Amino acid sequence: MPDAVDLIRAKRDGGTLAEDDIRWLIAAYTAGEVADEQMSALLMAVFFTGMDSAELAVWTDAMISSGERLDLSGLAAPTADKHSTGGVGDKVSLILAPLVASFGVAVPQLSGRGLGHTGGTLDKLESVPGWRAALSNDEILAVLAEVGCVICAAGPDLVPADRRLYALRDVTGTVESIPLIASSIMSKKIAEGTAALVLDVKVGSGAFMPDRTSAWQLAQTMVRLGQAHGVRTSALLTRMDTPLGRAVGNAVEVAESVATLRGEGPADLVAVTLALAAEMLRLAGIDADPAAALADGRALDRYRAMIAAQGGDPDAELPVARHAELVTAPSAGWLRALDARAVGIAAWRLGAGRARKEDPVSAAAGVICLAKPGDQVEAGQPLLELRGDDQGRFGRARQALTDAIEIGNEPPPPAEPVIDRIAG
Amino acid sequence: MPDAVDLIRAKRDGGTLAEDDIRWLIAAYTAGEVADEQMSALLMAVFFTGMDSAELAVWTDAMISSGERLDLSGLAAPTADKHSTGGVGDKVSLILAPLVASFGVAVPQLSGRGLGHTGGTLDKLESVPGWRAALSNDEILAVLAEVGCVICAAGPDLVPADRRLYALRDVTGTVESIPLIASSIMSKKIAEGTAALVLDVKVGSGAFMPDRTSAWQLAQTMVRLGQAHGVRTSALLTRMDTPLGRAVGNAVEVAESVATLRGEGPADLVAVTLALAAEMLRLAGIDADPAAALADGRALDRYRAMIAAQGGDPDAELPVARHAELVTAPSAGWLRALDARAVGIAAWRLGAGRARKEDPVSAAAGVICLAKPGDQVEAGQPLLELRGDDQGRFGRARQALTDAIEIGNEPPPPAEPVIDRIAG
Repeated sequence: MPDAVDLIRAKRDGGTLAEDDIRWLIAAYTAGEVADEQMSALLMAVFFTGMDSAELAVWTDAMISSGERLDLSGLAAPTADKHSTGGVGDKVSLILAPLVASFGVAVPQLSGRGLGHTGGTLDKLESVPGWRAALSNDEILAVLAEVGCVICAAGPDLVPADRRLYALRDVTGTVESIPLIASSIMSKKIAEGTAALVLDVKVGSGAFMPDRTSAWQLAQTMVRLGQAHGVRTSALLTRMDTPLGRAVGNAVEVAESVATLRGEGPADLVAVTLALAAEMLRLAGIDADPAAALADGRALDRYRAMIAAQGGDPDAELPVARHAELVTAPSAGWLRALDARAVGIAAWRLGAGRARKEDPVSAAAGVICLAKPGDQVEAGQPLLELRGDDQGRFGRARQALTDAIEIGNEPPPPAEPVIDRIAG
Repeated sequence: MPDAVDLIRAKRDGGTLAEDDIRWLIAAYTAGEVADEQMSALLMAVFFTGMDSAELAVWTDAMISSGERLDLSGLAAPTADKHSTGGVGDKVSLILAPLVASFGVAVPQLSGRGLGHTGGTLDKLESVPGWRAALSNDEILAVLAEVGCVICAAGPDLVPADRRLYALRDVTGTVESIPLIASSIMSKKIAEGTAALVLDVKVGSGAFMPDRTSAWQLAQTMVRLGQAHGVRTSALLTRMDTPLGRAVGNAVEVAESVATLRGEGPADLVAVTLALAAEMLRLAGIDADPAAALADGRALDRYRAMIAAQGGDPDAELPVARHAELVTAPSAGWLRALDARAVGIAAWRLGAGRARKEDPVSAAAGVICLAKPGDQVEAGQPLLELRGDDQGRFGRARQALTDAIEIGNEPPPPAEPVIDRIAG
């Protein structure tokens, strides 16, 4: 049996861990036989010395082996999924899953909740009355067979090693490591059983990876890892300097998603969603233009069926916040920047997000961007609408926005929402 | 109140921790408010990014503040102590403390036990029938006042932060970090209350620091740290390629120490002991030749008084091992090397050392070096005598010695025991 201290020292000193050692380590940690303080020291060593691609593939595989794998082989349809590294106003999953499903591709979106300034897909959908995030594996397969798409919580038996590792990384300053991020994301997506996967790697102030170089490295690492595990994988690098679309929060993002499914979405959100949809269809072997399904209502029908299949009422009124305040333009000119991170933190402080994973979120709280970078604005014109149920929270939300708005004499340079594509 | 994760991330990213943050961290960790997994991640970050001298001084001071400090100001004599980073056959403390005390300097040697292949001073002295390592603070002061030297265990209230940190480092691969080693050693020596301190930093295969550069850096770091805390500190770098003296074990090292105090010690052991004694006397402001006290029996008298003051019988027979085996020279020639680490491991496996801190040690087990590097030997001439109570242990002890002995056609280059001196 290997000794955890020897493995920590080997990794610390720049060595490569052997396959058996990695498998033992992950299994023993998940079983509680390797202590948290040993694993956190190893994770910090990985932060500094990295992992080579063979190590990372084994590490990821060992994580997957800590739990069960979903078996989607009984579905008649090809499968494809998308994962986003998380951004502000990123409601793409709500639109994309039914959109791609409307072309006969099964989309098994096992999702997480939000932590910090980026929201979670499940938190957003839970603002729909009656909708349930927790499904059994049988329910997941039934909704996929019936509707073609499902958005639900990953069950406790899917990569339990990641559950423990993620909680540990969160409190030990070992989140921002490309191999650790890549293995956390990819282990869950591979265990989920999808045959194809598109990664939406966000770049910019509101993203997990603020700079393009590290976002590109992360994307590359994940694409390789997917392929090593037999999942057709590609990645898009997309811009996250400013919120995606206009709505940031939970119910407000559901409403914007429905509008987009009706063909009335904001241009940046539509562009990112269609680019991801085209990539998913390509990987699933389907030659079609996804824009058609937004125009003719097919994607919206699929969304309504998915909501209903998970107990939700697609016609129910969404919660509306009790209080709203405006943030106005301090001067006239071109809106050059509206910082994603600042808006995300404002929405979070208004109640849309949580600080600890056991905290509840407010369905109605959030921020609406009334103007987008590139718009010409008048002094005093409303730029943001803050919404929340608790008036006491507006002050700190406004504080987060202090430096969020930049107005200048010239329009900003054009910023295409999709920056780069890393094909498998 | 600072957040432990923020401090870990700051250190990880090469930042400098503020004084208040360091003090909070050490206090909160000692109180159990910062978790082991957070501290081990921070320690691993320190392994990679280091600490600057201001951070290290505060870190060490915060460790000292976690417990009590011994107050030696009531003693009439000047105080001086020695700390060794640990080597094989390093019984210097047993000789040095009474030797320096015989010149009117009070020597408060608060010591530890052995772990791994280097022995502990307390383990060695415990082979003297009746001798007690555990003294109260009042007893320590009484023995110091009466005899002039004391060798005893550090109490649980002396730097409790180090007790927790050391146990954590041991299982998390974060032992080999110069700032962490330096703060661990120096916090205890400063808390012990000595006014002057000489560090014996060992270099070579049997030492904690195998290479001269890192040994020199460690020595420099500790000398600066001592001076920053008002302790007159200097360091010697001494050779640890081969055991110091001829005896490696517990009772066998006590016997060799007594022989040395009688003026019959092996040359390398005498040289290192006298160099350290001269340094201690110099720092204590006393101009004298320490060799005189070995020649005229003053140091031996002091040793006997110290043993008796701590309940021991200096005239008692020491335990003798039930079994002995010889290791002989495979060929004729010059003994060029007799590896310290290998001999240390052999003695350990014979029972002289412990694998876990709760293990007992054998008083009688050990190794006697019948030849030293530089000696000319015949084929079949005994080079080592292995001693132990458990015959089953001899096989693995011999295995450790497989590559320990090097015999050649030429004598080895001369190797002065003292390599360098770092004066404060």
